[in-house]
Amino acid sequence: MWSVLHDSVSTVDLTRARGWLCAGALLLAVGLFFLGFLFGWFINSSRETNFAPENNVKRKFLEELKAENIKEFLYNFTRIPHVAGTEQNLNLAKQIEAQWKEFGLDSVHLAHYDVLLSYPDEAHPNYISIIGEDGNEIFNTTLFEPPPPGYENVSNIMPPYSAFSPSGMPEGDLVYVNYARTEDFFKLERDMNINCSGKIVIARYGKIFRGNKVKNAQLAGAKGVILYSDPANYFVPGVAAYPHGWNLPGAGVQLGNILNLNGAGDPLTPGYPANEYAYRFGVAEAVGLPTIPVHPIGYYDAQMLLQKMGGPGPPENNWKGSLNVSYNIGPGFAGNFSKHRVKMHIHTNNKVTRIYNVIGTLKGAVEPDRYVILGGHHDSWGFGGIDPQSGAAVVHEIVRSFGKLSKRGWKPRRTILFASWDAEEFGLLGSTEWAEENSKLLQERAVAYVNADSSIEGNYTLRVDCTPLMHRLVYNLAKELQSPDEDFEGKSLYESWKEKSPSPDFFGRPRINKLGSGNDFEVFFQRLGIASGRVRYTKHWAQSALSGYPLYHSAYETYELVEKFYDPTFKYHLTVAKFRGGMVFELANSIVLPFDCQDYAVVLKKYADQIYNTSMKHPHEMNTYSVSFDSLFSAINNFTEIASKFNKKLLHMDKTNPVLLRIMNDQLMFLERAFLDPLGLPDRPFYRHVIYAPSSHDKYSGMSFPGIDDALFDIENHRDPPKAWGEVKRQISIAAFTVQAAAETLREVV
Amino acid sequence: MWSVLHDSVSTVDLTRARGWLCAGALLLAVGLFFLGFLFGWFINSSRETNFAPENNVKRKFLEELKAENIKEFLYNFTRIPHVAGTEQNLNLAKQIEAQWKEFGLDSVHLAHYDVLLSYPDEAHPNYISIIGEDGNEIFNTTLFEPPPPGYENVSNIMPPYSAFSPSGMPEGDLVYVNYARTEDFFKLERDMNINCSGKIVIARYGKIFRGNKVKNAQLAGAKGVILYSDPANYFVPGVAAYPHGWNLPGAGVQLGNILNLNGAGDPLTPGYPANEYAYRFGVAEAVGLPTIPVHPIGYYDAQMLLQKMGGPGPPENNWKGSLNVSYNIGPGFAGNFSKHRVKMHIHTNNKVTRIYNVIGTLKGAVEPDRYVILGGHHDSWGFGGIDPQSGAAVVHEIVRSFGKLSKRGWKPRRTILFASWDAEEFGLLGSTEWAEENSKLLQERAVAYVNADSSIEGNYTLRVDCTPLMHRLVYNLAKELQSPDEDFEGKSLYESWKEKSPSPDFFGRPRINKLGSGNDFEVFFQRLGIASGRVRYTKHWAQSALSGYPLYHSAYETYELVEKFYDPTFKYHLTVAKFRGGMVFELANSIVLPFDCQDYAVVLKKYADQIYNTSMKHPHEMNTYSVSFDSLFSAINNFTEIASKFNKKLLHMDKTNPVLLRIMNDQLMFLERAFLDPLGLPDRPFYRHVIYAPSSHDKYSGMSFPGIDDALFDIENHRDPPKAWGEVKRQISIAAFTVQAAAETLREVV
Repeated sequence: MWSVLHDSVSTVDLTRARGWLCAGALLLAVGLFFLGFLFGWFINSSRETNFAPENNVKRKFLEELKAENIKEFLYNFTRIPHVAGTEQNLNLAKQIEAQWKEFGLDSVHLAHYDVLLSYPDEAHPNYISIIGEDGNEIFNTTLFEPPPPGYENVSNIMPPYSAFSPSGMPEGDLVYVNYARTEDFFKLERDMNINCSGKIVIARYGKIFRGNKVKNAQLAGAKGVILYSDPANYFVPGVAAYPHGWNLPGAGVQLGNILNLNGAGDPLTPGYPANEYAYRFGVAEAVGLPTIPVHPIGYYDAQMLLQKMGGPGPPENNWKGSLNVSYNIGPGFAGNFSKHRVKMHIHTNNKVTRIYNVIGTLKGAVEPDRYVILGGHHDSWGFGGIDPQSGAAVVHEIVRSFGKLSKRGWKPRRTILFASWDAEEFGLLGSTEWAEENSKLLQERAVAYVNADSSIEGNYTLRVDCTPLMHRLVYNLAKELQSPDEDFEGKSLYESWKEKSPSPDFFGRPRINKLGSGNDFEVFFQRLGIASGRVRYTKHWAQSALSGYPLYHSAYETYELVEKFYDPTFKYHLTVAKFRGGMVFELANSIVLPFDCQDYAVVLKKYADQIYNTSMKHPHEMNTYSVSFDSLFSAINNFTEIASKFNKKLLHMDKTNPVLLRIMNDQLMFLERAFLDPLGLPDRPFYRHVIYAPSSHDKYSGMSFPGIDDALFDIENHRDPPKAWGEVKRQISIAAFTVQAAAETLREVV
Repeated sequence: MWSVLHDSVSTVDLTRARGWLCAGALLLAVGLFFLGFLFGWFINSSRETNFAPENNVKRKFLEELKAENIKEFLYNFTRIPHVAGTEQNLNLAKQIEAQWKEFGLDSVHLAHYDVLLSYPDEAHPNYISIIGEDGNEIFNTTLFEPPPPGYENVSNIMPPYSAFSPSGMPEGDLVYVNYARTEDFFKLERDMNINCSGKIVIARYGKIFRGNKVKNAQLAGAKGVILYSDPANYFVPGVAAYPHGWNLPGAGVQLGNILNLNGAGDPLTPGYPANEYAYRFGVAEAVGLPTIPVHPIGYYDAQMLLQKMGGPGPPENNWKGSLNVSYNIGPGFAGNFSKHRVKMHIHTNNKVTRIYNVIGTLKGAVEPDRYVILGGHHDSWGFGGIDPQSGAAVVHEIVRSFGKLSKRGWKPRRTILFASWDAEEFGLLGSTEWAEENSKLLQERAVAYVNADSSIEGNYTLRVDCTPLMHRLVYNLAKELQSPDEDFEGKSLYESWKEKSPSPDFFGRPRINKLGSGNDFEVFFQRLGIASGRVRYTKHWAQSALSGYPLYHSAYETYELVEKFYDPTFKYHLTVAKFRGGMVFELANSIVLPFDCQDYAVVLKKYADQIYNTSMKHPHEMNTYSVSFDSLFSAINNFTEIASKFNKKLLHMDKTNPVLLRIMNDQLMFLERAFLDPLGLPDRPFYRHVIYAPSSHDKYSGMSFPGIDDALFDIENHRDPPKAWGEVKRQISIAAFTVQAAAETLREVV
């Protein structure tokens, strides 16, 4: 009953060919012939271009998604830790593979790579000590987080460490560097004249990606980095610490990698898949490895280190966290403790290790060479209660629902690829290596990538980061789905989302963010120019200084955290499942791709206005160096005009003409690709999108017109003005060229 | 009568629907309905996929090509010089534009760019002198070539110069460096202990591209380069010098650019089009500019410089040319002349100048978003009798024939783009800038590029350089066309070609060469991975040491040179026109693209065997550094197997299914693209084809597996063996990955 052909044929009423026998037979014969001709003609037309309403199938697909199943999958996926490269995680991959096959996908396989991972040395635990004047260790940080209740007997819980830290035992004075942002080091070096060279810096987690903190500390000359979770950022007043609430306990520690890969994937095989015959660089040539030891601690231990700090007090209020300490900067300890030193004991080792992605396929019936990809990872630091299993459980349920349709004979128009990535936590390695291996297929055939890491980081409202091409799709879906929020019963998700998270740029719409990085969509969007998007439930950002959620990457990210505190009925998970699944469904089945190129025009104009305003803070230099944004605005005008014509043409297109349809769909598919610069961004060859890039200072957030923005940043920081303004001009020229060239791809070809 | 739809409909015989009235009417009714249904079905099917034999159209197209017209066009195009950036050449572009419109193309326009060109200073002519002991100029080279008879009153004949030479007046001792190849400098430095540092080197033209000679001289530390045409390379014994024959007179000089762009296009805007808002680098950051003065001379002047040379004699016989001099190496002059110096007086200037391509379009009726490109240049150094107008005249005639078909209502299946490039002589600038501007369209839509520079460089037999994808197309066409050669009356071109130029690799077939560079296909093939090919008539290579043809790039490349000596009946031109036009016709009209992926498999295996054998000259090091070619051979085996399956599938494909047809044609179109490495070759970012590149030592010739080959070259030259062997391994890995990934693009998707 799902077959499109069947649906169409059943509408042919053969009885109409009967009656009137032996009367006016010639007329009849001609008439019948003509009638048959018409049927043949139109039924043939419907073979390739499916007008049978897919809405019915879509409804069935969405109704098949069940909160109960997501809950069960989450429970199942979170019994033990699944650190990339471990046997436990391989077993999880095999389980997912087997279940996806059962669910009814056409094919499922494991795609493995041998990548550089990093593990602590079981025989030599990592810790940090305070060394007294006599050289004794007078304080040591704890070696592990106490296991969460109910998990005391689970083995293989990874102790706190910073993945890819080099081994080493640096000893020295501490400097407190706040979040270790660029501006924090500027404050220290320029305003306070405090030099971090040869010091061990202690930085609080939050605001930016930890790898960027380490890079900044290295540039400042530090010889070690201690990362800690300040209660100001990981403990919301009035909420209990785990297990009684969702706050971070004092002994909880955020694990994580500290690479600066800038999209390279496996550090030893940048640009190429880490397969059996890959050439591997030596560690000296590897991409993105930190050069100084780094270690993460909780706030109990941080209190012990920070309470003795000497030197000046915090320069600004925003340098103060919530610990009961002075937040003195250092260097070193105060008064009686001034001869005490801090020593790091790091014995972490890098190791080439096999990882396993699960790749499932549901083959397209009409356009099998067009790929819609749904991907999320399955590796975790601990139990993965939120990250990633709240996402993996949703992917699992989506696969199950598609599988059920497939078993009943329905096939999507385009091919859907389902991916469960490995080693996301070690630098997006599974997704990047797979995309490197399949880059030639992806660049010619991939329509869209939908990312599916953690389904929740809160339970307040929806959060969407996506390409402008998907804005309309996302808004339409939000209007179709019910809001799961309290006080929004019977209302659409769009309404609750809009009310709770209004767009700062477009009045009357909910907020949609730029794509940055920090998740598996990176290689697809930033390197390959494949239209991408991600959706999850989030917290109330305005109401807290929280970075993410408090238990992020700690041992306390359990099933119970989700089930007791975040989403007891799994209604938020279900909403996210319907959203992610709905996006995939539309992308894979809409006859015309659900991309709106005019929305790209709108944001291009907005970004150009913003960057122009930033530049215009320097009117004198703009004049001196003849800096003009005219070419960029002109290109955006052209883009806007051509996009509008494209949409008009699309509206009136003969959608029964398969070649015409393919031509215009190809124009839509390749539009995101057209924003790539094959030469990449300056010093970031694997970030090739001219409109978007991960921020140079925090890979989690996205920046627009990154080339221009980075050059203007150099100007803000007084780096060689003639050169920097030359670079601004060069980057404006590249942006204008790219926008114009992208516009040309939308020009009428038929 | 050309309409495909019309052809198909006319085969429907409506009379078959008549007869048998009033008998078994129900049966009849059903039967008629069914019959009508079938007609409706199949006629609808035939709407998109054209089975009407195109052979008739092709025959008309080829028969329309006339030697007389080519002759007339050549005459018309060679009345005056057409140096890029001059008014004369703009007028030629406008004339071509107007005529292509008249011929019947759908649209024609000029595409202009502002690129770096280079001209001598009219007020300060360039020359070289011998300076006596007293500092006087005791000999000066001539300032211009005497004009050819009949052209004495033509103004604006460019005097001899090396385009892009910096200005300068270096003075010093001469060193004779033979062809200035890498091996020539090795011979001097390693075997003869002769240091070129601070010397002016004199090199004979030939064997390699002059820009490579200059690069080698710079690396050797020279402060100036004199290029000259030795009679050994530019004068065939027994043939008269122009105007009485096709040999180079003593005062004839080869002009030309001496850039080392490696595919960058305009030196100031590498990677981006040199349009109105392009950012231009300063000369210090420009790509490929020579750093020392360079000047070309004829053999009369060379005799004057070489006859006094001192130092050792030529190290090998192949260092001797045919002048009546010793070919002593130097440095400096012998005996009485030892205090004489050579001084160069170079006042050439670089100048950003507007150039104009002519771009014509014949829109495809079925797949307008698939492009077949025929391109050749129209700028010349002198009259351009051979280079380029013997090619431009052929392109003109091909456009005329297509235009005539178009006027009669016929349209090609795919869009044909005709390009007349500007500034080819200044570094392939017109084609490269245009391709940079349109790269996004080209990479998604371009099916093939057919190059059309000089139609002849001799009149002995056919010469073809092309992608393996086109081997079958080329051989088939050669079998269809008549041989124009004497003693081959009534035989096919294939037969004469095979007999005169047998393949060294494949028994029983004519030779086809690898694509290198030195012509406008470069950006299409080496940077963008668009299947490319070139065809011309050539000389008997085995019988002479000639480099190209003697009058190449001299003032004596006139219409009369062609009409009197090379091709009085223009039958060779006509053959080349039919070949180039036939290729374009097939590429634009074949329902299935005329590409054979199995031929790629065959050459991949051949190249791998060759490079393996080269590497195996060092069995000990292969072992020491664990160098294995297994991955490459394995990838080639996979490619071979998948290509074979692809061809089988193609054979039995339902060609009436437009989507299926498009899918498989896309696989064929994108196969060449799949051989690109987005990261480019080491230090040559604009050469991205992993299987082919212009030779690192001579851009005119093509090398296979260039990454591996270059690394092995370093080994041959004893450069840091561990590093070089590591690079060999890395390059084998990249090659294996690329071949495997290309194979995957041919895997069955439906």
